[in-house]
Amino acid sequence: MIGGGPGAFIGAVHRMAANLDGLIELVCGAFSSDAERSMITGKELFLPVTRIYGSYKEMIRTEAGLPADQRMDFVSIVTPNHLHFEPAKLALENGFHVVMDKPMTFNLDEANALKKLVESTGLIFCLTHTYTGYPMVKEARQQVLSGKLGKIRKVFVEYPQGWLSDLLEEQDQKQASWRTDPSKSGMAGAMGDIGTHAFNLAEYVSGLRTEKICADVNIVLEGRQLDDDGAVLLKFDNGASGFLVATQVASGEENNIRIRVYGENAGLEWQQEDMNSLIIKWKDKPAEILRAGAGYLSKSALHNCRTPAGHPEGWIEAFANHYRNFALTTMAKIKGIESKSEWLDFPGVEDGVRGMRFIQKVIESGKSSDKWIEY
Amino acid sequence: MIGGGPGAFIGAVHRMAANLDGLIELVCGAFSSDAERSMITGKELFLPVTRIYGSYKEMIRTEAGLPADQRMDFVSIVTPNHLHFEPAKLALENGFHVVMDKPMTFNLDEANALKKLVESTGLIFCLTHTYTGYPMVKEARQQVLSGKLGKIRKVFVEYPQGWLSDLLEEQDQKQASWRTDPSKSGMAGAMGDIGTHAFNLAEYVSGLRTEKICADVNIVLEGRQLDDDGAVLLKFDNGASGFLVATQVASGEENNIRIRVYGENAGLEWQQEDMNSLIIKWKDKPAEILRAGAGYLSKSALHNCRTPAGHPEGWIEAFANHYRNFALTTMAKIKGIESKSEWLDFPGVEDGVRGMRFIQKVIESGKSSDKWIEY
Amino acid sequence: MIGGGPGAFIGAVHRMAANLDGLIELVCGAFSSDAERSMITGKELFLPVTRIYGSYKEMIRTEAGLPADQRMDFVSIVTPNHLHFEPAKLALENGFHVVMDKPMTFNLDEANALKKLVESTGLIFCLTHTYTGYPMVKEARQQVLSGKLGKIRKVFVEYPQGWLSDLLEEQDQKQASWRTDPSKSGMAGAMGDIGTHAFNLAEYVSGLRTEKICADVNIVLEGRQLDDDGAVLLKFDNGASGFLVATQVASGEENNIRIRVYGENAGLEWQQEDMNSLIIKWKDKPAEILRAGAGYLSKSALHNCRTPAGHPEGWIEAFANHYRNFALTTMAKIKGIESKSEWLDFPGVEDGVRGMRFIQKVIESGKSSDKWIEY
Amino acid sequence: MIGGGPGAFIGAVHRMAANLDGLIELVCGAFSSDAERSMITGKELFLPVTRIYGSYKEMIRTEAGLPADQRMDFVSIVTPNHLHFEPAKLALENGFHVVMDKPMTFNLDEANALKKLVESTGLIFCLTHTYTGYPMVKEARQQVLSGKLGKIRKVFVEYPQGWLSDLLEEQDQKQASWRTDPSKSGMAGAMGDIGTHAFNLAEYVSGLRTEKICADVNIVLEGRQLDDDGAVLLKFDNGASGFLVATQVASGEENNIRIRVYGENAGLEWQQEDMNSLIIKWKDKPAEILRAGAGYLSKSALHNCRTPAGHPEGWIEAFANHYRNFALTTMAKIKGIESKSEWLDFPGVEDGVRGMRFIQKVIESGKSSDKWIEY
Repeated sequence: MIGGGPGAFIGAVHRMAANLDGLIELVCGAFSSDAERSMITGKELFLPVTRIYGSYKEMIRTEAGLPADQRMDFVSIVTPNHLHFEPAKLALENGFHVVMDKPMTFNLDEANALKKLVESTGLIFCLTHTYTGYPMVKEARQQVLSGKLGKIRKVFVEYPQGWLSDLLEEQDQKQASWRTDPSKSGMAGAMGDIGTHAFNLAEYVSGLRTEKICADVNIVLEGRQLDDDGAVLLKFDNGASGFLVATQVASGEENNIRIRVYGENAGLEWQQEDMNSLIIKWKDKPAEILRAGAGYLSKSALHNCRTPAGHPEGWIEAFANHYRNFALTTMAKIKGIESKSEWLDFPGVEDGVRGMRFIQKVIESGKSSDKWIEY
Repeated sequence: MIGGGPGAFIGAVHRMAANLDGLIELVCGAFSSDAERSMITGKELFLPVTRIYGSYKEMIRTEAGLPADQRMDFVSIVTPNHLHFEPAKLALENGFHVVMDKPMTFNLDEANALKKLVESTGLIFCLTHTYTGYPMVKEARQQVLSGKLGKIRKVFVEYPQGWLSDLLEEQDQKQASWRTDPSKSGMAGAMGDIGTHAFNLAEYVSGLRTEKICADVNIVLEGRQLDDDGAVLLKFDNGASGFLVATQVASGEENNIRIRVYGENAGLEWQQEDMNSLIIKWKDKPAEILRAGAGYLSKSALHNCRTPAGHPEGWIEAFANHYRNFALTTMAKIKGIESKSEWLDFPGVEDGVRGMRFIQKVIESGKSSDKWIEY
Repeated sequence: MIGGGPGAFIGAVHRMAANLDGLIELVCGAFSSDAERSMITGKELFLPVTRIYGSYKEMIRTEAGLPADQRMDFVSIVTPNHLHFEPAKLALENGFHVVMDKPMTFNLDEANALKKLVESTGLIFCLTHTYTGYPMVKEARQQVLSGKLGKIRKVFVEYPQGWLSDLLEEQDQKQASWRTDPSKSGMAGAMGDIGTHAFNLAEYVSGLRTEKICADVNIVLEGRQLDDDGAVLLKFDNGASGFLVATQVASGEENNIRIRVYGENAGLEWQQEDMNSLIIKWKDKPAEILRAGAGYLSKSALHNCRTPAGHPEGWIEAFANHYRNFALTTMAKIKGIESKSEWLDFPGVEDGVRGMRFIQKVIESGKSSDKWIEY
Repeated sequence: MIGGGPGAFIGAVHRMAANLDGLIELVCGAFSSDAERSMITGKELFLPVTRIYGSYKEMIRTEAGLPADQRMDFVSIVTPNHLHFEPAKLALENGFHVVMDKPMTFNLDEANALKKLVESTGLIFCLTHTYTGYPMVKEARQQVLSGKLGKIRKVFVEYPQGWLSDLLEEQDQKQASWRTDPSKSGMAGAMGDIGTHAFNLAEYVSGLRTEKICADVNIVLEGRQLDDDGAVLLKFDNGASGFLVATQVASGEENNIRIRVYGENAGLEWQQEDMNSLIIKWKDKPAEILRAGAGYLSKSALHNCRTPAGHPEGWIEAFANHYRNFALTTMAKIKGIESKSEWLDFPGVEDGVRGMRFIQKVIESGKSSDKWIEY
């Protein structure tokens, strides 16, 4: 693991997600660019001191030099955005598979470069867009793909948060500080941090590709350097339209990402606050509530459930599904067997490129006086 | 009553709403432009045949000629949009107060003319934007006005319906036929029919005024003549931004108008599917569920509740609140006493003008390649 | 109307319910046993003073003496329980149909006597057990009757209220005072006031008849004279079991009556807080949400909807459904035509007798050390 | 780990729960009484073959013989009920701490014996009553303990499942087979399997102790040997009353355990289907929704949250909380430091004894014709 030292949030989540299914074992880490802090975290995690590194470079090079059956199998990169590309590049160049937190890179150029590298090395790359790891999100996609909803006409996705309703970055809150700092976060704030999640979810569930956007991007809190709020009108490749809302100043909201997709025959709705339900509202018969773990779900959804219906699995489990599928795919590759299609269903480098393009285009549109710009 | 004959929907609703509180009695009507059909409806409603008229002109003129204590007190106009202005004009010119279904007129010019007439006659005018009649919508407005939420930053309003997911107008469904016909509905379809409701609700609850809009207006079903779908980015006079969604092709949706308003300290949420609850999500304390009929509500909300908490009042009651407040205001005027502020809280001619301006501007923006246009 | 004077709650509700559909007109009333107070209410209701009576006896006798086309058609009795039987008896003896608030009488003997009288006169009698007036409760019954759920195995009904969590009767609150007074309410408090509603709902929806009960009946607030809380284990005639909870000391609860019925294949659930939905949870397919006003409902449910799906109808509308069906049945009888089966679907004297028997048996069981007693 | 071999459900859950926080590592197991099947599971779990045992006796004795720093630290017992006591006894006698699935033993005698053994050895014992591991259940208990609700008057707990609506035991479903077999499950079926969960939850949240019960215990499906359904009236030590429902034949229900506790000032409500919310309904102010992860929660609740509000944690996390607290307590003991009060908050042997007593008394009451029996 690279990153995830003292004060970090997402590093601990990656570790829990990786632990859950007993397929992955944390064997080494460079948890901080400060070697002492890295050591502290590493010891807390029961790692032997020889596998606790002071920098990602040291770690990748040292591990690469170990015998194949003793070295780490892959790298998880959980640092702020400006520290994604270089470690990933080095890991790939040294033959390690990569799990990366989102958004994929600092800018679109890095994203394109990374994509080339992943493709040329043939290594496995997973981008942790958590929300597509939920079984009922996978079911939603399957329902759309099955054609039961008919041609898709509308896609609404929203991701309201309230935690940046105050200038937390002035209170030295670590999460807020780097996310609102253009030198670490990149050209976007909320649109990069959560807008990309919403965008990824919309394209994943609908199976559509965005063609045009019209964005209203705002800095609501005076003194903030990056957008903390925005709304985007969308046009998709099949003619459907939609909107995407991502805001971090919706006071009182937690993390309620939600998607609705309407086709000719029905609309479906999923939201994280009721993550184990998928509601399908039919045009001319009663709405249905599909539930995680139920026997009638698609193979794709059931593969991502650990427990029978009624035993709620949450955000860590969704996160863990990406890790599990990545691990299953990686183990299959190592063993030389073919991956099942369910295993391959995790976000990859192409999702990352599309996300970075989303960031660039949304910021561009936000500044434009033209209504529509090409995605 | 003018309109509301065989096959009509909203006419019956107006009658129930007027009946409910025992303050208003239906005394006469011109229910159809076809005298025979008007007679059928009038008889079903137990009216004496002498008060069942074959046209609104006949009704207004005849009633105006009756002694003051025998004539009708006011007129309810429940016809399609193209038949709003003329009857209203005639009624006002003959000294009758007016209740009008929304949107107020066929176009903005008529709206402005009507406003002048209402102001010059001093008569009372009520526009039935139903949703602001709900007690918890009134409470929402009071919460915003109280300043507890802090400065308003975001306003989200949405009105998804699914009933026009098919070309019902080709099946001769009366409701669909006139609403999708530009000669009866006006320049807008969904944006006029339900977009104006959403717009009115947003301005009512937030207390803000719209300054700029950017609209995506769509005809989703091929062959339809008016928009059946749209989304609008909004900028308000205090700098807040927001969006408005109104669609009639969200298959499976019923009539779930919903509003969320976020201020510095909290967000509030109301939706018709849970109409007797108002949720306030505080930034740093537990969310609260305020309930219709509860003793802790504002005077404004409680005035519009008929029953104690836990006895759900619905859409007809919300509708009836406008009628009740209109009736209380009208009776006060007749008796020469002053109306209480709660009585005066019903939508009037200014709401109607703003709604018609919304229609005009949204359609204009929908056709424009500029992002923002002035409201 | 008999009762419903100053300070009353349910009288106003009966009037709104009767008004709503324009089928019934309030023509006279004895609103209080105090002639002056009766006059005050009557005038507020715009009645001519000649039809405002100082006692129910005066009213019934005077009205009976009017020509048939000028006298009232039926009587609504909305007084406390101890004043139900005598007015009903007199009304029936004078040829008037009767609408009665619940529970039907002061005790079981009166109930049996009333039943005989209704049967012998052939007049129409309606008991306002409000909750069976909801369209989705009617749909629930139809779903059970259709056999889709299979043999019924379990019936859970609960009616939690919190309004008697304090000794309101010591604060002279009119509603609390008579309901907690054995000389006015009868032998039961909560079990009579709301337990009978729950019992009626359970038998109505399940189509079963209670055979044995085991009751825990409590006076939770010290100093109170009648039960304010209770729970009852039930055995039904088909072998199913269930429970009924009725409490008025569940602090914070409003009026959330709720029923769940489980058969071999599915369970259904309805609760007043979401009164326009009926949820059916199937054993092996997705749960369904049936909605008031939707085209797929049974004829019985749709007959009791006034508006299309998505326009919430509430408690007053449910109440009004009983009035409407009573009125349609009564008008049919007057016109000598046959009533449709939907019109006849309102609670009658047999429901009243069963409710009074429930009260007697529950109180008996509450005092018994035997587990089961025969219903 | 003892048990949890091929076909088991709860064993895998224990492993995920133990894995999650990186505090516990699976080092050995006797996963089946069949040595071959134990080996299969052990290998799937990446254990070295030397630590995969053919029986619990072999495992405990062999591990006990290993050097202290190489042997397992504790035993998890996840076998059917009839195989709980003997392995636990042997483990304790050999100095191993124990985690045990519920209900604790096969009968009350074993439970009492186990309690003595735990007390005499001073070893740490954790019983996995999952539901008290949820942070919002812990918050519920803290709210009651704080006195804010006032004296508790009512406790309602229900645990409806539907999975035994058919005779799955005749289809050789492993979970159903042992649970409905008196030789493996003990004297109770549903009442032992889930009734004990509900009972534990009720006493944990309310802080009350049961004094009298009146039970209706049913075998609903013909041919079944143990109860699959029941309801219990309860009397608590402070005079409060309540009910407990546990059924496995509520067709269509998943696993929706739910508790409501009412005091003088408010009622609280928690249910697993919305596990991250705790609703407090105040008598005279708006209801509040408390949310997992929120800063305003008690220390006890926050200690059991891994993520900020809005990142749903589910059933596995609740389960893992018991493991984590058990591990923290055990590590503290090993290190000779004092446990924090939050760490000690997991179900122990006394909960187990009370659960077994509940089973015995409920079955006794179910057969009795007396209404109340002493707990």
